[in-house]
Amino acid sequence: MRTVGLMINLEKEGILELVGQTVSLLEEEGCTVLIEEETAGAVGIAELGVSQGQLIRLVDWVIVLGGDGTLLSCARQFAATGTPIIGINVGRLGFLTEIDVPDMKLDLKRILTGHYYIEERMMLEAEVFRQGKVVEQSVGLNDAVITKGAFARLILLEVFINEQYLNTYPADGLIVASPTGSTAYSLSAGGPLVAPNLELILLTPICPHTLWSRPMVVASDSNVKVNIVSRLGGVMLTMDGQHGFWLEQGDQVVIKRALHNTRLLRLKGRSFFEVLREKLREDDRSNG
Amino acid sequence: MRTVGLMINLEKEGILELVGQTVSLLEEEGCTVLIEEETAGAVGIAELGVSQGQLIRLVDWVIVLGGDGTLLSCARQFAATGTPIIGINVGRLGFLTEIDVPDMKLDLKRILTGHYYIEERMMLEAEVFRQGKVVEQSVGLNDAVITKGAFARLILLEVFINEQYLNTYPADGLIVASPTGSTAYSLSAGGPLVAPNLELILLTPICPHTLWSRPMVVASDSNVKVNIVSRLGGVMLTMDGQHGFWLEQGDQVVIKRALHNTRLLRLKGRSFFEVLREKLREDDRSNG
Amino acid sequence: MRTVGLMINLEKEGILELVGQTVSLLEEEGCTVLIEEETAGAVGIAELGVSQGQLIRLVDWVIVLGGDGTLLSCARQFAATGTPIIGINVGRLGFLTEIDVPDMKLDLKRILTGHYYIEERMMLEAEVFRQGKVVEQSVGLNDAVITKGAFARLILLEVFINEQYLNTYPADGLIVASPTGSTAYSLSAGGPLVAPNLELILLTPICPHTLWSRPMVVASDSNVKVNIVSRLGGVMLTMDGQHGFWLEQGDQVVIKRALHNTRLLRLKGRSFFEVLREKLREDDRSNG
Amino acid sequence: MRTVGLMINLEKEGILELVGQTVSLLEEEGCTVLIEEETAGAVGIAELGVSQGQLIRLVDWVIVLGGDGTLLSCARQFAATGTPIIGINVGRLGFLTEIDVPDMKLDLKRILTGHYYIEERMMLEAEVFRQGKVVEQSVGLNDAVITKGAFARLILLEVFINEQYLNTYPADGLIVASPTGSTAYSLSAGGPLVAPNLELILLTPICPHTLWSRPMVVASDSNVKVNIVSRLGGVMLTMDGQHGFWLEQGDQVVIKRALHNTRLLRLKGRSFFEVLREKLREDDRSNG
Repeated sequence: MRTVGLMINLEKEGILELVGQTVSLLEEEGCTVLIEEETAGAVGIAELGVSQGQLIRLVDWVIVLGGDGTLLSCARQFAATGTPIIGINVGRLGFLTEIDVPDMKLDLKRILTGHYYIEERMMLEAEVFRQGKVVEQSVGLNDAVITKGAFARLILLEVFINEQYLNTYPADGLIVASPTGSTAYSLSAGGPLVAPNLELILLTPICPHTLWSRPMVVASDSNVKVNIVSRLGGVMLTMDGQHGFWLEQGDQVVIKRALHNTRLLRLKGRSFFEVLREKLREDDRSNG
Repeated sequence: MRTVGLMINLEKEGILELVGQTVSLLEEEGCTVLIEEETAGAVGIAELGVSQGQLIRLVDWVIVLGGDGTLLSCARQFAATGTPIIGINVGRLGFLTEIDVPDMKLDLKRILTGHYYIEERMMLEAEVFRQGKVVEQSVGLNDAVITKGAFARLILLEVFINEQYLNTYPADGLIVASPTGSTAYSLSAGGPLVAPNLELILLTPICPHTLWSRPMVVASDSNVKVNIVSRLGGVMLTMDGQHGFWLEQGDQVVIKRALHNTRLLRLKGRSFFEVLREKLREDDRSNG
Repeated sequence: MRTVGLMINLEKEGILELVGQTVSLLEEEGCTVLIEEETAGAVGIAELGVSQGQLIRLVDWVIVLGGDGTLLSCARQFAATGTPIIGINVGRLGFLTEIDVPDMKLDLKRILTGHYYIEERMMLEAEVFRQGKVVEQSVGLNDAVITKGAFARLILLEVFINEQYLNTYPADGLIVASPTGSTAYSLSAGGPLVAPNLELILLTPICPHTLWSRPMVVASDSNVKVNIVSRLGGVMLTMDGQHGFWLEQGDQVVIKRALHNTRLLRLKGRSFFEVLREKLREDDRSNG
Repeated sequence: MRTVGLMINLEKEGILELVGQTVSLLEEEGCTVLIEEETAGAVGIAELGVSQGQLIRLVDWVIVLGGDGTLLSCARQFAATGTPIIGINVGRLGFLTEIDVPDMKLDLKRILTGHYYIEERMMLEAEVFRQGKVVEQSVGLNDAVITKGAFARLILLEVFINEQYLNTYPADGLIVASPTGSTAYSLSAGGPLVAPNLELILLTPICPHTLWSRPMVVASDSNVKVNIVSRLGGVMLTMDGQHGFWLEQGDQVVIKRALHNTRLLRLKGRSFFEVLREKLREDDRSNG
């Protein structure tokens, strides 16, 4: 008898019907379904609503109805609990969401009868120190990005790995990514692809002014410290492209592996390489 | 008997002394020296001060005491007059400034006695159309850059060349650069180097999401039209990294060759390739 | 009454039938058709055969039945005559071949009745000097590539533009490309795309050892001189990836714009940007 | 009482004197010194000569007098024994060689009195299968590179990771590199930098024809299988740029982590990041 949470991207087309189907299916299989109360109201099943805090505490599994973006947000919310996440892909093929809507019924049944495995994905944690105090603390599954505002031409970032001086990047910014994040923003900035079962941290400068500033791979237990040396026109720390925090000159951002992993509940479906080949080409096809 | 304007970067070290020397030298050689009035006051020779408008109208030549940044600013101000610009390089070697401070006396005399040539550099002009009206018009010597704010992950830019659809870039932004600008921001974003005597327009996407979005070279008489399709978190148009204008969704930015060139007054000194080799390595040395 | 030559890629599937149709069509329209004699024999219409030299001298137009590779070869053979070339695309979409097989009948009729325009494409000429003597002279429409053999790790190439020293590249090689060639090998090595109506020369190093060695664009009337400083394991000059010549240490390769253009006979069909978008994505789709 | 082998790069300037000093120093400290017999003759101390096989079997440590190239060669020769290697850097700063000639006396004494630590570096092993039989087996510390000959435009490589299909690269070649090799050929081809204490395998395509073929990082225990699908103009497998083997169409190259590590004997000297900053800029300075 499982308690299953639903995370819902309300902006996806046909989402109401899909939520209805999912709830019915889960209840038929004997699960208790919970939804964050505001969202529960929005989809017209207020009776399943609980507070965000309760949702996080009570559920055994959480099912994401949305795309990779919704799953990233879910991963951050459940970062401290290790609750397994199942992604149902509403829209384009995702790297993180696994189940396609037409297969949902069958796939969920397979999962509920134990035909799954857990894929651990390391997360990143960022802390911002200002005059010795921690003023921000947040986690991300893809990346912690330090980036300049629209007007600034470049910022100066002084980077240390385990207190060893690495380099000072004059650049538009710096992406500190997990293996999972290697297929996201880091890829656009010239970073390598990383098999998601690896544990490592990827540093990809954005438009570096010095030509020899190249993407760098360091160990997963590294302490990545970035000093914000200059700040003209605003500098921001962004987790997974979703949660932003304004930085000030003199701030220190310390990024390291988060205590807990995101745990993706997987069927033996498409391999990472398969999704990769399809996604990279789909991105190309879907624009222009 | 020439009238010579001085453009001064007040932040450079030792600039007051240098201004004094330059004024003396020019007056000894029979030139009339003019300075924008506020700057003239700041350097303690208010008697040479004229309004900005008069400065632009009256001078035969303008001498820049500063770096490439000061010269870029000067080039925009004199964009409509074609007044030749002489750059005296206060600080690091520049692509645009030619005379080094220790050689200034000798080099200025050579120039005043006619030992120089004019190097024409094409400029770019950007116009922003909003609901059919022109809401911004500005010029640049290096580049017109359309770029996202700190928070936004990517923007969608629909690009047409001479009304022919080129591509829709999901990206951090797009750099439209002149040959002169090829060694600036465009280079950091992966653009090619361009010999400055060429006439062409360079389109370099910033962190494009589609992997096949590569830098592109088009003719100098091209009309580059960019539709701001999406705008989340702010999109800005920046000329030469110095003059910014906030864009809105639905805006059309039209970038084309400006009517006038910047005219650099040159001695037969270092070749572009020489400066290039030295600069690219200097950038590397001066950081880290 | 036109004399039309046929250049045929014998390896394409269904080529015999296509040749038959093309010959009938042209003869119906009153054209005289000529084919290089060996090829004429191979396709079973020996009566149309003439020598290669006669073919080049006698024809008013030449029709290519093949792909971009066949057209490149044709362009080199007709480099000295300026004979207009019509490409019929047997196989995948081409950058150079314009007419698709299903449209051939209609499109050829339109061309024969004057509904076409000529697109000029600059070519490159390479000369190899060995101990003061010219030992090789050849032309290419895409590129002149200097590249190391399989075993050598890198070669040292000293490059001059108009006798001005540019750089010494320690690299796997150097691609000197025309705008037409910007979509070929140069693109794989990180070079920019160039609109084909431009006139310029593109220098793209292959795997340069120095990180600041970037693709460079120079004027179309540039004299590009490359000194083969080191040679371990063999160095080759290749035109359009089709014609190769072994270089020796101390050789000088001089590459410049060829005297004549390739003249492509075009209908008002797809724009370059359209083909570009389609091709770049097709390349991605067709592999993997 | 240690037995120490010497590996000597005979082409380095002043090498004879340096060998003399090193032998004296080691013998004073009570070590037995051995040199491969042909080399021993060449440096005029034939009495220290033993066969290559004996050298590998008998020595406790091996000292390299040369550069990174000599050390790579040494690492391959001692791949099966795990003998610690000390690199004395004759020439430019090296990533692998640690001791500078002026500090040699002092540094060797420190090492001989136990002030050192061992740095483990994973190696790669390549096996070539032809019609079911192993026809080549070799190891490398930097990389196993599959690359086309000078004439061929591209080759087709079908890659599997742990029997899972990854991609078919139409490219000039593929670099399979260790973390140590990330600063070598892979870097020139666009690969990321990797901290050398990591254990992973890096796949960097050389001039890939498909734009989405990006460098990829996979686990150190991966089995990387490459099928040579096409072969025009010759394809070669090269280990560390030093040992080559011609491949044929249909060959399978299997690359995986080698059984043994190279063990570098280190003083607590420069950090990897320090050497990296210096090397990358030195490469730039030393050319052009």
